[in-house]
Amino acid sequence: MSLLNMPLIIQDTAAIEGDMGMLWMLISGILVFLMQAGFTLVESGMTRSKNVVNIAMKNLLDIAVGSLVFWFIGYSLMYGESASGWIGWSGLMFNQGPADLFFQTVFCATAATIVSGAIAGRTKYSTYIIFSVVLTAFIYPIAGGWEWNGGWLNDTDGIMPAEFIDFAGSSVVHAVGGWAALIAAALVGPRIGKYIDGKAVDIPGHNKLLATLGVFILWFGWFGFNGGSQLAWGGDDATGASMVVLVTNLAASAGALGALFLSWFKYKKPNLDMTLNGALAGLVSITAGCGNMTEGGAIIAGFIGGIIVVFSMDFVEKKLKIDDAVGAFSVHGVAGAWGTLVIGLWGVDGDAGIGLFNGGGSAQFVAQLIGTLAYAIWAVATSFIFLFILKKTLGLRVSEKVEIEGLDLSEHGALAYPGKRQREIEE
Amino acid sequence: MSLLNMPLIIQDTAAIEGDMGMLWMLISGILVFLMQAGFTLVESGMTRSKNVVNIAMKNLLDIAVGSLVFWFIGYSLMYGESASGWIGWSGLMFNQGPADLFFQTVFCATAATIVSGAIAGRTKYSTYIIFSVVLTAFIYPIAGGWEWNGGWLNDTDGIMPAEFIDFAGSSVVHAVGGWAALIAAALVGPRIGKYIDGKAVDIPGHNKLLATLGVFILWFGWFGFNGGSQLAWGGDDATGASMVVLVTNLAASAGALGALFLSWFKYKKPNLDMTLNGALAGLVSITAGCGNMTEGGAIIAGFIGGIIVVFSMDFVEKKLKIDDAVGAFSVHGVAGAWGTLVIGLWGVDGDAGIGLFNGGGSAQFVAQLIGTLAYAIWAVATSFIFLFILKKTLGLRVSEKVEIEGLDLSEHGALAYPGKRQREIEE
Amino acid sequence: MSLLNMPLIIQDTAAIEGDMGMLWMLISGILVFLMQAGFTLVESGMTRSKNVVNIAMKNLLDIAVGSLVFWFIGYSLMYGESASGWIGWSGLMFNQGPADLFFQTVFCATAATIVSGAIAGRTKYSTYIIFSVVLTAFIYPIAGGWEWNGGWLNDTDGIMPAEFIDFAGSSVVHAVGGWAALIAAALVGPRIGKYIDGKAVDIPGHNKLLATLGVFILWFGWFGFNGGSQLAWGGDDATGASMVVLVTNLAASAGALGALFLSWFKYKKPNLDMTLNGALAGLVSITAGCGNMTEGGAIIAGFIGGIIVVFSMDFVEKKLKIDDAVGAFSVHGVAGAWGTLVIGLWGVDGDAGIGLFNGGGSAQFVAQLIGTLAYAIWAVATSFIFLFILKKTLGLRVSEKVEIEGLDLSEHGALAYPGKRQREIEE
Repeated sequence: MSLLNMPLIIQDTAAIEGDMGMLWMLISGILVFLMQAGFTLVESGMTRSKNVVNIAMKNLLDIAVGSLVFWFIGYSLMYGESASGWIGWSGLMFNQGPADLFFQTVFCATAATIVSGAIAGRTKYSTYIIFSVVLTAFIYPIAGGWEWNGGWLNDTDGIMPAEFIDFAGSSVVHAVGGWAALIAAALVGPRIGKYIDGKAVDIPGHNKLLATLGVFILWFGWFGFNGGSQLAWGGDDATGASMVVLVTNLAASAGALGALFLSWFKYKKPNLDMTLNGALAGLVSITAGCGNMTEGGAIIAGFIGGIIVVFSMDFVEKKLKIDDAVGAFSVHGVAGAWGTLVIGLWGVDGDAGIGLFNGGGSAQFVAQLIGTLAYAIWAVATSFIFLFILKKTLGLRVSEKVEIEGLDLSEHGALAYPGKRQREIEE
Repeated sequence: MSLLNMPLIIQDTAAIEGDMGMLWMLISGILVFLMQAGFTLVESGMTRSKNVVNIAMKNLLDIAVGSLVFWFIGYSLMYGESASGWIGWSGLMFNQGPADLFFQTVFCATAATIVSGAIAGRTKYSTYIIFSVVLTAFIYPIAGGWEWNGGWLNDTDGIMPAEFIDFAGSSVVHAVGGWAALIAAALVGPRIGKYIDGKAVDIPGHNKLLATLGVFILWFGWFGFNGGSQLAWGGDDATGASMVVLVTNLAASAGALGALFLSWFKYKKPNLDMTLNGALAGLVSITAGCGNMTEGGAIIAGFIGGIIVVFSMDFVEKKLKIDDAVGAFSVHGVAGAWGTLVIGLWGVDGDAGIGLFNGGGSAQFVAQLIGTLAYAIWAVATSFIFLFILKKTLGLRVSEKVEIEGLDLSEHGALAYPGKRQREIEE
Repeated sequence: MSLLNMPLIIQDTAAIEGDMGMLWMLISGILVFLMQAGFTLVESGMTRSKNVVNIAMKNLLDIAVGSLVFWFIGYSLMYGESASGWIGWSGLMFNQGPADLFFQTVFCATAATIVSGAIAGRTKYSTYIIFSVVLTAFIYPIAGGWEWNGGWLNDTDGIMPAEFIDFAGSSVVHAVGGWAALIAAALVGPRIGKYIDGKAVDIPGHNKLLATLGVFILWFGWFGFNGGSQLAWGGDDATGASMVVLVTNLAASAGALGALFLSWFKYKKPNLDMTLNGALAGLVSITAGCGNMTEGGAIIAGFIGGIIVVFSMDFVEKKLKIDDAVGAFSVHGVAGAWGTLVIGLWGVDGDAGIGLFNGGGSAQFVAQLIGTLAYAIWAVATSFIFLFILKKTLGLRVSEKVEIEGLDLSEHGALAYPGKRQREIEE
């Protein structure tokens, strides 16, 4: 008779664990939502005061449009039935429960908002809206399904030597957003005054305190971004999600220190902008592997991520001569690729090493490389096609007059800091 | 014997679900607390820099006084025993557990703080304190009990054709605060310079970036405001609260877009202030119905809320000629009434329509109308009485000299941004 | 047979309660993390704009270095095996699970960051890094183990007449940080211009709105700081942690009001800086006793804490003539000591009074006094030794030229607000 009772008890436990998982996922989604505020502050703080209203309008748009579009069509393309593993579909307005839809929605909005910073200060608002719709409706969802809907990147019967691992989206979210940001920045062209006689000119951000607040808010929200991606709570999942949060914090810390010390060595002074981007790069670097890294592995991944981002920003600015106003490509794209690949170097699966450097052989690294390349190619190709069409039709860029005056006054009819700015303009 | 065991198992499950519910309610309350920071930023950012310290002092006061007063007397008036269904009482310092008291306290502080923005820039601090005490001790708690303490609005034996529905407080919190804000703004009168020759003059806010941050923080906290109002977690409650969070986000998104597009059409430029207020209006519009709306219904409710708020702000400013400095009445009062009524139009109860437009008949709409009017009348009448007495005794308004100099220096002896302001004053 | 089943059911319940406890602890840790942003805003907002980048860099450093150092060595010194009860050790990189390590890490970073504000505006960044490492690796962890690792302060076989109570760290975290801040401020000396002819000169903070936001964020995070210190959820722990959050809010509210009214009485105007510090002092005052206070007790403790902090800041500035730039010692050190002692005055253990004034006798008060003194002596002695060595070797202080120019430009090569500041410098 005790056996007769057992199933009842176990069922109850499973239901309760399901409820706890839903609670953790919902709270995590709420934390991720606040990242929109973090992005707004980082992008505004790191650029000039005459374009602040425009940045706020872009970030508001990303979450507003993203929420509606992803609910209407994006979720279905990402998580709908998919025989091929390349694209899903279960009809419009499909979803698998409100907590999951909400959690996935705020992820989608994150991918969109990464682009915003790169093209700050010279992009048409109307065109930006269209691209934001395209990214949240098609580019991100289709790519996301490859990995998180049991798509082709998990199918070891084909070309994949192992299942691709991207726990919370170093590639799926950040690199996709980062590559799109690079293409957008290249196609829209540099801000007036950014390159004089082919030499890059520093355009300092107008409020580094708010940029710092933004990074703290992003770091805070990232605990939900990575931790919530456990999608469950209870037993091993509770410890697992806690471990995810722990290594996320360690990687961010190491990334900040990596960039801090490198900037100190390189520029003779410990630099705030670099330290902030280093912390973000550390976070991006652990996003794919936060379920597959030891504490030590996370620290090294984050530290190297913090170093890579400094060199990458230099390279993009001075060699590629692409004006990525806040380093969005370096932080999300390059560190995103690095964070995806590092699992193939010293990732773990429980106690077993799965990387090149810890006895796991090359299969996982090859899988990570295929996935990294697939996301890069997809994001570059689709962004280029849509942005190129937009450039040739509606145009990507505001007029020279509007850009010099600032987008806030021309495109939105309002200044972020009327008192101060109006006085400056009158001067 | 399995039957003998069953109660034990069920009891455990119920206890655990109770614990999960308390966890969700407590975390939600913590999120709602942060809304005080959001209100401070929105009100400060949307008004002039010479009154920032005063706004911060008012918002700190609202939570500090509200927490003590609501614990001491308010909770008992709201949730105490009530034979009549009009007013509760179970003695001073009554409460039904710390998690519930905390959650209800931060709601009460929210109602108080709505008033603050409307009367920014010309109201005496000492008088404001007294009104804040009155609102958190009496006006809000008594009104709240009508709905949330099983009061007369739920009593279908009397005039109510159906139980009034206000899940998280479109009317109970927001419209009560909003109506009080309108009365206060009318009685205290417009800021000097707001109306010249009877024409409204735009007084731009001094920091739109912080206003935007404030809206994001409010949106974030609102997930706790609405979601926590489930007051439980586990089984259907887990899915229910998740659905609440989902539709809250959709309505806010739709509200932002509604106001964005209308402002674009109306003023030829996509306007940030309107978009921010649209998002807030979307949130207020779904607050009553977040447990009784489909995703599509929430989107339409929010979208219309975002449109209404633009027209309402125009109407209050230009027709009523009441100087509501941040649009508090339009955002909380008008959208609050709309959010309450919309349940009677296309609300649902599970799968069944309960609204005029989805086959539910008119009973629910009439119930919503009665409740909406009851809260409006109560808030208008009590606010008017108390504020009128305060006006005739202590006075509501600072002197002309103080107002022109700014409340910060005169009332609080300090400037928010000393360097900048001191230079301006010296000039 | 029902008896045979019972253990299974109970085991499940215990496991689930463990999982809920981990969830609450992890979420609490995430809230505490955001306090770093709060500290950054309070410290920046309450000091001058030319040192904002430096403050941001110090706070980023505290969490980054603290996270790595505490993981590597600090946790083991704090929570490792300890026969003596004075110092723990279980090898490098020891921890008792990721959720606990994360929660303890953010506590450690808080202790470190308290020092930052006191010495703002004149301290060498390189020296600060070293002290931050020392504090997070040794000073804080060793002291913490005395209380939270079942150390000598809990050992009633020796000199302790009762077990010392410091639920969430009024002494363990705040007073340790506060005393270190006082010693640091004394050793580094006052800012140039702070004392003219022996008289203290007010140096107003540059952004009181962001300081206010910082206090709201700290208050928000403190719910995790105190509430999470329950370290469990479920049954009595759920109610207990909720009660902790409730009394934390009441004490903060009372502290804000205490300082508000005292400043009004003392300076004739309700003062924002004082109100903000009063709220923080209220929070610190309830941190030790949040598990051992009634609502009324918490309100009195917080209210007195808010009053003490005003007098203490005056005393430190005018009598001791130590330039504590943001009042860190008064807020964290003095209110921390007060919050520890007050348990011996009117603390409760369940329904029983344990304080001098509520029939509990003197044992608890003596225990609290011993603990308070022990933490003060430890923090003063260790801080003095390390800082004195640093002063005599690397030096604590920047040059006069660097200080006048501002640390941002000289030490970090960047201004927080380039546009505005650059114009001022050019003038």
